[in-house]
Amino acid sequence: MPPLSLDMRLDALLDGLARSDTAALARAISLVENQREGFERVLSAVHKRLGKRGTQRIGITGPPGAGKSTLTEQLVRAYREHGLKVAVIAVDPTSPFTGGALLGDRIRMESVSLDPGVFIRSMATRGAQGGLATTTEEVADVLDAFGFDRILIETVGVGQTELDVAATAETTVLVLVPESGDGIQTLKAGVMEIAELYVINKSDRPGADKLRQEIEVMLGIRKGNAFAHVPAHQGRPAPSNRPAGRQAVGPSDWESPVLTTVASKGEGIADLVTALDRHHDFLERTGKFAERRKRRLAARTRAVVNRAIRQWVWDETKAEELVARRLDDVSAGIRSPYDVAAEVLDQVRNGK
Amino acid sequence: MPPLSLDMRLDALLDGLARSDTAALARAISLVENQREGFERVLSAVHKRLGKRGTQRIGITGPPGAGKSTLTEQLVRAYREHGLKVAVIAVDPTSPFTGGALLGDRIRMESVSLDPGVFIRSMATRGAQGGLATTTEEVADVLDAFGFDRILIETVGVGQTELDVAATAETTVLVLVPESGDGIQTLKAGVMEIAELYVINKSDRPGADKLRQEIEVMLGIRKGNAFAHVPAHQGRPAPSNRPAGRQAVGPSDWESPVLTTVASKGEGIADLVTALDRHHDFLERTGKFAERRKRRLAARTRAVVNRAIRQWVWDETKAEELVARRLDDVSAGIRSPYDVAAEVLDQVRNGK
Repeated sequence: MPPLSLDMRLDALLDGLARSDTAALARAISLVENQREGFERVLSAVHKRLGKRGTQRIGITGPPGAGKSTLTEQLVRAYREHGLKVAVIAVDPTSPFTGGALLGDRIRMESVSLDPGVFIRSMATRGAQGGLATTTEEVADVLDAFGFDRILIETVGVGQTELDVAATAETTVLVLVPESGDGIQTLKAGVMEIAELYVINKSDRPGADKLRQEIEVMLGIRKGNAFAHVPAHQGRPAPSNRPAGRQAVGPSDWESPVLTTVASKGEGIADLVTALDRHHDFLERTGKFAERRKRRLAARTRAVVNRAIRQWVWDETKAEELVARRLDDVSAGIRSPYDVAAEVLDQVRNGK
Repeated sequence: MPPLSLDMRLDALLDGLARSDTAALARAISLVENQREGFERVLSAVHKRLGKRGTQRIGITGPPGAGKSTLTEQLVRAYREHGLKVAVIAVDPTSPFTGGALLGDRIRMESVSLDPGVFIRSMATRGAQGGLATTTEEVADVLDAFGFDRILIETVGVGQTELDVAATAETTVLVLVPESGDGIQTLKAGVMEIAELYVINKSDRPGADKLRQEIEVMLGIRKGNAFAHVPAHQGRPAPSNRPAGRQAVGPSDWESPVLTTVASKGEGIADLVTALDRHHDFLERTGKFAERRKRRLAARTRAVVNRAIRQWVWDETKAEELVARRLDDVSAGIRSPYDVAAEVLDQVRNGK
């Protein structure tokens, strides 16, 4: 019997997804993650099934050691108790020596990993050169179309790539620990401001209150008023009757709450679930959900175009050959990388 | 008088660089960082002046709060005492609200910032979409050609982007604090293994010895022998007469040392400088310096080609127009981003 053609295999895969076959799901994700032949066709089909249900994508980020995995595990349990299907994408920094995400799947979240309503997937940062956020979003699309109600995207590390990944979700949670106070001045620029929800985990340790105050002051400053402390609450639209002297924010603004949890004991998880639901409702009600989705799709389309062009240039034109031929000159300082790029561009323009 | 043409302005800029004019240096870096018209020409000229001297590029990375800025400041002072000219590139995570690096230049390293032998530059991660490592390397090239003897590249955060940036240097220093022990299991994969030098800063706090042991065990494991503890030393090529039972490593292997510092008091800085010099000598002596440079140039040339192609596609073809026209269909689920990418690629291939 001849091997199945690519088209036949992709059809079978799409059938499997439509039948809610978990094995097909795992295969589809691998195809997408590794950008193997036909992955765009699968994603195209997936795209047309999105946006029909109220799936919530939640990014969970924060420094190493903040307890993000434990918190994620507790969130999964809480959602399962509400009868929701939950997927977790765990994005690990890649080791140049051992490959980062290999171990992840096995050791993560043992308590929930046998539940058929839970799907856990680790992703390495290696490979998706400069495009990890895009790949993560594509994997989330597959899970979304498959019918998961909550998609948790957990990233390790607080760098730019990790923030970009977390920002593909419509709600981003920044998890800190009381000891994070030390680094908070450094974190301020950029890392802090991306979140719609702040969680101080391990809040039974000393310093939790102080850190919460610091974050609240920072959020006040961010809105242009150093005296506008944001009160601790579970997350709600900003009230319209604000005291005099505080900057007015309309009902279409979101005041990021600062929550405290002890994830290892399950403390504070119910409040976190409530705050996440409120943010989702807020986005839906104000039209920001559709707005945000549209903006993300525009960015994604551009990223997908760039990737397609890049693949074409290196795989189907003579760019690779030309670059290889010029490398000795570049090393010797006879030509620069910019001379070579101009040559390649010239070739590509002229259809070679 | 008519305004100067682009060519005349670039000529003036290159003349300024050749005359060691610091104002020209600042202008050249801005041109490169913002990829303004003509930046490739400047970088091409710069490229041809590189690799003649023994400039050392040192990446300094680690979690927020580890004291990297203070350590960098101390390193700058130490090098200045040796009569060396030092440049610092501080790469900050960008704030989506305030712009990350704006404040950086002013508050950083006050004690050394008035010294004419020191040049400090902050760079934001925003803007250099997926290409921050390339841009940082290009700015380092400009500083290298200008005549700085040491270029310190300090990154904030321990994410993938920050690692990529730090890895553009030939020597990468990972700065930790005793409290980092908590997160070390998480850091292991990827983040830990990139460094040629480990520094435990604030080592007068409890836990420094324990962390050093943990790192040493990890480095032993990495080499395939859990019992091969690497002794604390100042960094040296692996000795050839190793005791029985330890894995043999040739003289062409480098054993990453674990150093301790209290940067705020200047403690341990002299040892760090010695270790950095040894690593540089090691790279030169074993031919790894040239090898590494060649590999980086190959990667850079590819990155520069990708950037040039991307700019061409969006600025000079009808891609932007087509994507804009298709966005409503994409949002409505009628077309997918992949359908649009295929259309754009088709246009580009056919020279439109």
